Amino acid sequence: MTYQVLFTIFGATGDLASRKLYPSLFRLYKKGELAENFAVIGTARREWTHDYYREVVLQSIAELITSDHEAAIFASHFYYQSHDVGDAAHYETLRRLGETLAKQYQTQGNQMFFLAMAPHFFGTIAEHLKSEKILTGAGFERIVIEKPFGESLETATKLNDSLTRVFSEDQIFRIDHYLGKEMIQSVSAVRFANQMFESLWNNRHIDNVQITFAEALGVEDRGGYYDTAGALKDMIQNHVLQVLSLIAMEEPEVFDEAHIVAQKVKALKAIKTYTLDEARENFVRGQYAASSFNHKEFAGYKEEPLVAADSRTETFAAGKFEIDNARWAGVPFYVRSGKRLTEKGTRINIVFKPGGSSLFEQNLETANILTIYIQPTEGFSLTMNGKKLGQGFEIEPVVLMYRHDSAYLGNSPEAYEKLFLDALKGDGTNFSHWEEAKRAWELIDVIRAAWDEDASPIPQYAVGTMGPRAAHELLARDGHFWRWTPDVWYRERGLL
Amino acid sequence: MTYQVLFTIFGATGDLASRKLYPSLFRLYKKGELAENFAVIGTARREWTHDYYREVVLQSIAELITSDHEAAIFASHFYYQSHDVGDAAHYETLRRLGETLAKQYQTQGNQMFFLAMAPHFFGTIAEHLKSEKILTGAGFERIVIEKPFGESLETATKLNDSLTRVFSEDQIFRIDHYLGKEMIQSVSAVRFANQMFESLWNNRHIDNVQITFAEALGVEDRGGYYDTAGALKDMIQNHVLQVLSLIAMEEPEVFDEAHIVAQKVKALKAIKTYTLDEARENFVRGQYAASSFNHKEFAGYKEEPLVAADSRTETFAAGKFEIDNARWAGVPFYVRSGKRLTEKGTRINIVFKPGGSSLFEQNLETANILTIYIQPTEGFSLTMNGKKLGQGFEIEPVVLMYRHDSAYLGNSPEAYEKLFLDALKGDGTNFSHWEEAKRAWELIDVIRAAWDEDASPIPQYAVGTMGPRAAHELLARDGHFWRWTPDVWYRERGLL
Repeated sequence: MTYQVLFTIFGATGDLASRKLYPSLFRLYKKGELAENFAVIGTARREWTHDYYREVVLQSIAELITSDHEAAIFASHFYYQSHDVGDAAHYETLRRLGETLAKQYQTQGNQMFFLAMAPHFFGTIAEHLKSEKILTGAGFERIVIEKPFGESLETATKLNDSLTRVFSEDQIFRIDHYLGKEMIQSVSAVRFANQMFESLWNNRHIDNVQITFAEALGVEDRGGYYDTAGALKDMIQNHVLQVLSLIAMEEPEVFDEAHIVAQKVKALKAIKTYTLDEARENFVRGQYAASSFNHKEFAGYKEEPLVAADSRTETFAAGKFEIDNARWAGVPFYVRSGKRLTEKGTRINIVFKPGGSSLFEQNLETANILTIYIQPTEGFSLTMNGKKLGQGFEIEPVVLMYRHDSAYLGNSPEAYEKLFLDALKGDGTNFSHWEEAKRAWELIDVIRAAWDEDASPIPQYAVGTMGPRAAHELLARDGHFWRWTPDVWYRERGLL
Repeated sequence: MTYQVLFTIFGATGDLASRKLYPSLFRLYKKGELAENFAVIGTARREWTHDYYREVVLQSIAELITSDHEAAIFASHFYYQSHDVGDAAHYETLRRLGETLAKQYQTQGNQMFFLAMAPHFFGTIAEHLKSEKILTGAGFERIVIEKPFGESLETATKLNDSLTRVFSEDQIFRIDHYLGKEMIQSVSAVRFANQMFESLWNNRHIDNVQITFAEALGVEDRGGYYDTAGALKDMIQNHVLQVLSLIAMEEPEVFDEAHIVAQKVKALKAIKTYTLDEARENFVRGQYAASSFNHKEFAGYKEEPLVAADSRTETFAAGKFEIDNARWAGVPFYVRSGKRLTEKGTRINIVFKPGGSSLFEQNLETANILTIYIQPTEGFSLTMNGKKLGQGFEIEPVVLMYRHDSAYLGNSPEAYEKLFLDALKGDGTNFSHWEEAKRAWELIDVIRAAWDEDASPIPQYAVGTMGPRAAHELLARDGHFWRWTPDVWYRERGLL
């Protein structure tokens, strides 16, 4: 299928556009999803020429170019228009350019708007798109936006109201790039295409669920933004709760956007809303401290550029969610995310209960664990118990491993590319929906409030650890512990 | 623990003794299980000197020797006595030698007899051991014997009667060397130390079970014996049914010999005894035909040395067993074993039912499969369904693999060594018991009889295939198929 569409990219001179948008569009072009009938208007404050813009686009896709001729034709579809998002007159210019290109490229009135810029501009842009009649209803009209979607339930609601005055929910595509990742999409395959796991996916068999989003990097050059957000809002509110809802949701009747989203929202609503006391008890935070790891010295978070020296922003958050329904009552969902941890790794661990047989000593140490590796390793492992080699009969854990091999992965579309194509198709399954975001903010706001009224020092953790002691105590208190096998262990055994 | 014991090996000049017994004894010696207080009397018809015998022993362990001094001391415990198993006077000589060595090595009256020779001598030897007072009851007295244990229920019963006139069941150790293999012993670990599999191990979740004992070799130089046996008696009656009973048995109350054997016997008794017609319908046989495979020409079975040119002995047997109990009603246990098949490989496949979800197309092709690799690969795999990489949502099977790595395996005891040590300990768990053998013969006799009264030509199969067409039709008729992924597939994917 070849799409006919006019793209307008707000923030076209920015980093996100160069790193993600242009390469994704080029990949879709190379695959024939885009051909003659598309054009791109890039806009931003700066004064650029079409030619200069095309040079920037070509640079951003340099690694993907296999034919200069092809790349040149692709770039010829790009047009630049300097623009001030608050100035109505400028939208008039945009509209005229758009109309010309729509005719020239026969885009059938289809339009997609990428808002690759700070969220506080979203409302203004949406309103001007409407008031200046850039939106005509002639074809499909969709708006694609990036996180963060608000900073609290209140600000998110305002943001959403400003968008929905112009766009309906099914025209809004809120990107959560983790939802474009293969292994997160695979969660549904694991659950609903495997009799084995289908039968076991409940509180009779599952002891606890662990979701880890670990980063090895610090805040790098994003200290300015990060210091206003923190791990709770930056990761838990969106990515982590999205993954949690995919694991916890009931089986949708049909595997489509409407049914899946409805089930995810239901799962999110079944999560217990904590009181302030409960939130304080069940969530912990931390900040990475200046420390050395692997013979290297690292700055502490508060010494990072653009971070306040007395910052109380958390670079690590961990906690326990509880789900009040028949399937999950009694099964803690432990989540954690942080920077400067042992290694980069996003993983889901489904920890099964110890066996019912009393023949061999079985406890949580020897539990069966299904691990879904989301990144950078992509694959599955099942930890089970076998007989230890040798005389006698001792039990020892063995790890059955599957990973996508790199050749296979190399040919697979990147998360952004997949999401863009989904948006072109009008399929919002792998995007975040308002009802999800709203419920997530309700859950997060309580935790944030509990932390904000707690003036005690933020627990510090050393670079290269898996967060502050409190994150481990959180599980130990329930008789559990975090399942995290560093990649180096697998590598030493030839499993990775 | 260091054992005090006098071994007497009947058939000491034979191939089995050199290949298996002496190396196993040496390994136990190196591990300190045997030290000063043991001696070995080797007997056979030939006239050998002690020194010559010790040379033979040293040659048989050549690859294991790390210290000549140690090996020399080990060999000094070996004594040779020429012997005619039918001549009472010769036992008198044996007894005197034994008494001398028992004193010299302080073996405390403990004796183990290895009968590494043809089964028709077993009765005579046992009776003479008793009548000539070699058995005194002073210490433990055990007899270790090799397969075949009879050729039918009738002959096996006679053989057993002749042994039990002298030895009680707990003194008789019938070797089934597969029961010494790590991965067969691991079947119980899989079942009873993994909540996941414990919960699924029944006819609500398991669709069918497949047990394959495949050999790539032909009969080689064993044509003389093999032509009197065939795959049914040589493999199915013992190894295959042993494995089947471990898979099918109910959980024993205690993990010890008495409880396990009782459960295995119960499982074997629950196998449906076929009528002749049912046996013919549910079991198929074949003979390998002269053919080429991998650019090599192979002789057909009937052209092999020592095989009758009009032989009707099967080199391949496959069939379906049904178990009439609550756990297994409706779950076929498919078994097969043959020579000159695609590759050497002993494996168990537990094929789970397709999932209950209708979200994705699921059928037996996409079923979850737990595979236990017994040899030459040792390990586990779980075939499950994941999302196919790329846009959209297609399901594809992925294989989670665990194999014991070769370094680990290199340090693990060989099957024979393990079984010998078990016998020294008096632990018969991993040996075949009379009630098991008896029930297996009952089941096999019917199949043999059904085949014997069927004069139609024996189906031929080409070398390098997995047996005759009928073996595939057997499953196709039930809507199933043999799950066999050649090792080369795994190797190409870096899984082996």
